[in-house]
Amino acid sequence: MIDTVLTQATQNQDDALNRLMDLLRIPSVSTDPAHAPDCRRAADWVADHLRGSGLTAEVLETGGHPAVVAKAPDDLVAKPTAPRVIFYGHYDVQPPDPLDLWKSPAFEPVIRDGRDGPAVFARGACDDKGQVMMFLEALRAYHDAGQKLPGPITVLIEGEEEHGSKNLPAFLEREKNRLAGDVVLISDTSMWKPGLPAICTALRGLVYFDLKLQGPKVDLHSGVYGGTTANPANILTRVLGQLFDDDNRINIPGFYDDVAEVTPEEKAAWAKLDFKEDDYFGAIGGAAYGEKGLDTLTRRWARPSCDINGLKSGYIGEGAKTVLPAVAGAKVSFRIPAAMNPAKVARQFEDWLRARDVGPCTWDIQCLSKAGSVATPTDSPFIEAASRAVIKTTGNPPALVREGATIPVVADFKRLLGLDAVLLGFGLETDAIHSPNEHFGINRFRLGTQTHAALLAEVAG
Amino acid sequence: MIDTVLTQATQNQDDALNRLMDLLRIPSVSTDPAHAPDCRRAADWVADHLRGSGLTAEVLETGGHPAVVAKAPDDLVAKPTAPRVIFYGHYDVQPPDPLDLWKSPAFEPVIRDGRDGPAVFARGACDDKGQVMMFLEALRAYHDAGQKLPGPITVLIEGEEEHGSKNLPAFLEREKNRLAGDVVLISDTSMWKPGLPAICTALRGLVYFDLKLQGPKVDLHSGVYGGTTANPANILTRVLGQLFDDDNRINIPGFYDDVAEVTPEEKAAWAKLDFKEDDYFGAIGGAAYGEKGLDTLTRRWARPSCDINGLKSGYIGEGAKTVLPAVAGAKVSFRIPAAMNPAKVARQFEDWLRARDVGPCTWDIQCLSKAGSVATPTDSPFIEAASRAVIKTTGNPPALVREGATIPVVADFKRLLGLDAVLLGFGLETDAIHSPNEHFGINRFRLGTQTHAALLAEVAG
Repeated sequence: MIDTVLTQATQNQDDALNRLMDLLRIPSVSTDPAHAPDCRRAADWVADHLRGSGLTAEVLETGGHPAVVAKAPDDLVAKPTAPRVIFYGHYDVQPPDPLDLWKSPAFEPVIRDGRDGPAVFARGACDDKGQVMMFLEALRAYHDAGQKLPGPITVLIEGEEEHGSKNLPAFLEREKNRLAGDVVLISDTSMWKPGLPAICTALRGLVYFDLKLQGPKVDLHSGVYGGTTANPANILTRVLGQLFDDDNRINIPGFYDDVAEVTPEEKAAWAKLDFKEDDYFGAIGGAAYGEKGLDTLTRRWARPSCDINGLKSGYIGEGAKTVLPAVAGAKVSFRIPAAMNPAKVARQFEDWLRARDVGPCTWDIQCLSKAGSVATPTDSPFIEAASRAVIKTTGNPPALVREGATIPVVADFKRLLGLDAVLLGFGLETDAIHSPNEHFGINRFRLGTQTHAALLAEVAG
Repeated sequence: MIDTVLTQATQNQDDALNRLMDLLRIPSVSTDPAHAPDCRRAADWVADHLRGSGLTAEVLETGGHPAVVAKAPDDLVAKPTAPRVIFYGHYDVQPPDPLDLWKSPAFEPVIRDGRDGPAVFARGACDDKGQVMMFLEALRAYHDAGQKLPGPITVLIEGEEEHGSKNLPAFLEREKNRLAGDVVLISDTSMWKPGLPAICTALRGLVYFDLKLQGPKVDLHSGVYGGTTANPANILTRVLGQLFDDDNRINIPGFYDDVAEVTPEEKAAWAKLDFKEDDYFGAIGGAAYGEKGLDTLTRRWARPSCDINGLKSGYIGEGAKTVLPAVAGAKVSFRIPAAMNPAKVARQFEDWLRARDVGPCTWDIQCLSKAGSVATPTDSPFIEAASRAVIKTTGNPPALVREGATIPVVADFKRLLGLDAVLLGFGLETDAIHSPNEHFGINRFRLGTQTHAALLAEVAG
């Protein structure tokens, strides 16, 4: 049965590409209020596409741009008792600026050579319209082949991901019955390298602080007052300068207590990934640096990190100004892997700050976000099903990777709906998402379509 | 003889005040090119006033706003072999903004009550037209009393002090013969408190650095890269956090080697100043803090200080942005008392920075200024003459103070012309210089005039 569907997907592939290009022509820029009608048009377009595959689709209000929710009617599902897959994606796109760096207009998709062969160039080609359409075209292949879907599915395509998904948590909470399921499937990440799809099994969480250290009530002249009163910039650097020990470990008591060990199986898998430090750091003009004795992938994926994201105090223009600043500010954030608790980390950091000697200065400490880490066990049946699907379409197992960054919606699905996630992505780092000349290799679009079709069959078993 | 002059000064005092108000009506704002003609008008006005006292006065080009140089002809000097006093001041003023906070227009001087009795309110009333006019009216009193001046004098009134005196060093160098003398007398500072004039005998120098620490070549996502590569903001704070030891002493080897001890006589004099820490720190909303075991005046006047004047890295707006910054910058400056050498301090700091561990980051270290400290020995005959003058006009000796800040022109006079300075000021902290409603107490204007007249006699002996 699945082979019939895959054959159909191959037969559909030119039409599928044309449909993707139709969707790419809608400038659904979610951050720009002027494009609100385009966002709604994109939602309608997605709902129509889903209906064309036999699903019931609704365009639902969220308070911001609408979301599309679609389900397969029971008579279209071969095994209604199989686990229900919730597919999540987004139809909105980043603004296309700077426009003059695009070789062809951002919302007039064209096909030309990309980094890995013919590619479609347009804003959203990869992020996330291209990756959403892989799944939608997998559904279309089932429909066009006259096959039922292997198991129950729900599709949720939102329109505010590039604007922080600010209405999504409330929407998930409100629609929790409609969105009940067994796993959330997301295609909004990258392959490990060309030809090797990746399943991301864990994300680090984020704890983000805004710190202000207040000294004198106004900026003072550093000649008149220097050496007489506390300079909050001097003291802020003295405090933050204690954040790391000599091994570049975060210097907060008990900080590492809850960090989950990487299993030997995962360590072995990562070792096989053929990660090339020189390429990785060469691309950013940086160099490997961090917690002593650990390799780069472990530091990035499985260990906490602490970064000063911003520093601001006194005079920041060109040249010299002899100011003794009244206040010194820093943004400081932590990335926390499983099983660290964001509330605990926030408390530990604030306690540590308040235990530092700041002389007569006073703190204003604001915690701006506390997002948990998420991890799907690598032996989860959904990860295994997705892996079998990749083997079916590529002949090889996928890379099982993690991600150092936080994808808040993944944590939201876990927290609000109790769903583990399968993050199966077909992007490449070279796709220029969020940049001019975004593109998506046509072969990857086709591979993703086939893989999603196979995945649905593997999940249903 | 001097009593005749002082009596004349008293008789002149209403005319003197009117003349000051005439000068205050000229909006000689040096930083605003639109006021260049007003600056020239103020210079001409000053030259005319000096000529009215029998001096030969010239308005000289500097490359910017002109400077006035005047001398007493030999037949007007009683003792031509006496030491030559160079009086320095400036006719330019700060911009009057914000205009709406002035109770009367900035360039329409009026007399009303100030903090210490009737005062003239106008931009420049104290800084520095009022203090310049004290000296010019002392000369006028000699003239109107039909008395020769006691010794040779040269007057230099420039027009760019509020714009950094940027053409002054070259002017001093070029006119070094015309400006040769034995001491420079400046009235551009404050009294210690109402009723107690002060002579400032020493100023700290300034060594100012702009530091940039470069990490990756572009800003990175702190989730994707956090923990893998060096964050220059983390490392900059680690380096700057080492600037002070546990006693709040600057942690650079050999840094204090050249710091001159305060003499027991000066210590005793400072102890008598009745310095009130609570008032001092209450006014700035700060608290005493600094090098362990030393009182505030010693830290302010006689010890080096180090201040971070600015910090800038990554995201400095409101809210959160998860950036791992490519670069972290700081402005760091040192105030150095006698007898520290600014070039040596700059070298010590740069060496210290380069000896810190910054991982794979790289420094861009710029030294923006290196100004030496200046000190006039408290037993200098000019300080003693000025003190006797203050005793003559007030009945009490002046406060012998220092200043924590740098007055670059004082260092320029020392460096280029070899002149020690006598800084005899009649301002008060409450005069609102550089602020709306600047004013100058009329009694202080009169006291300064009398004191300058007496000082000339005391210097000539």
